[in-house]
Amino acid sequence: MNDFPTDLAPLIGTWRGQGHGDYPTIEAFDYFEEVTFSTIPGKPFLVYIQKTKHAETGAPLHAEAGYVRSAGPGRIEMTIAQPTGIVEIHTGTVADGVYSFASETVATTPTAVDVTACIRTLTVAGNELSYVFSMEAVGEPMTKHLVATLTRV
Amino acid sequence: MNDFPTDLAPLIGTWRGQGHGDYPTIEAFDYFEEVTFSTIPGKPFLVYIQKTKHAETGAPLHAEAGYVRSAGPGRIEMTIAQPTGIVEIHTGTVADGVYSFASETVATTPTAVDVTACIRTLTVAGNELSYVFSMEAVGEPMTKHLVATLTRV
Repeated sequence: MNDFPTDLAPLIGTWRGQGHGDYPTIEAFDYFEEVTFSTIPGKPFLVYIQKTKHAETGAPLHAEAGYVRSAGPGRIEMTIAQPTGIVEIHTGTVADGVYSFASETVATTPTAVDVTACIRTLTVAGNELSYVFSMEAVGEPMTKHLVATLTRV
Repeated sequence: MNDFPTDLAPLIGTWRGQGHGDYPTIEAFDYFEEVTFSTIPGKPFLVYIQKTKHAETGAPLHAEAGYVRSAGPGRIEMTIAQPTGIVEIHTGTVADGVYSFASETVATTPTAVDVTACIRTLTVAGNELSYVFSMEAVGEPMTKHLVATLTRV
């Protein structure tokens, strides 16, 4: 039986809120988001499920899924798969509620948009989870793409 | 609005059954498995969620999540994330209910087991889904690791 890593516990829950997306190559947009970090009994990792909807039309926008694992005190790893044909391997650190992930690998299918690196920073303060997602894609340097603030429901 | 790819439709559903795992470096084991391939309204891909339990103890064993997308008639792509620190990018083909995926990329976090390539072959025949999963890992050549037969529930 594994002990659950204390570093990961603050993320557990379902979080909902609103975000804003922008990038040099697209028109800015607002979205609603639901994120769940859940556990599997006896397992030392978190299951990460995310979905967004367009803030005005309600149409499904993005989805992604993955896992967060501990790599020792203060050290974290994350795996992510996206329906857009993208996968991410992250390493990072956690301190004072700030989870800082930087991609070690971003790989894409032949028909996917060309994303080469990304940075995900999540901050948990009690029942608020905010994040910034930056990416290096389609020839652009590392640039902020998404910012959102969610509340634990 | 996207039309849903007809190539992917036979996979839709929740599937349960039993599998057998083996590899040159481990002791053979049996497991129960549940797989779901589901849709998101208006989106042209499948959401893939998998969980297994030990056949004797019922303890959670493995989990993985990802997405299947079409890359044109008869051509498919898949992204997978694993809590063990592994992500996979697959390309493949589908014909006569046989979905043949071969990894283009397998990437791992620093603390993960070293997996370098894998092949996933899924066969759908009506309400039966069987699969074979082979992998090249920990210095072994491409070797069969998992075989399972599931029934649509």
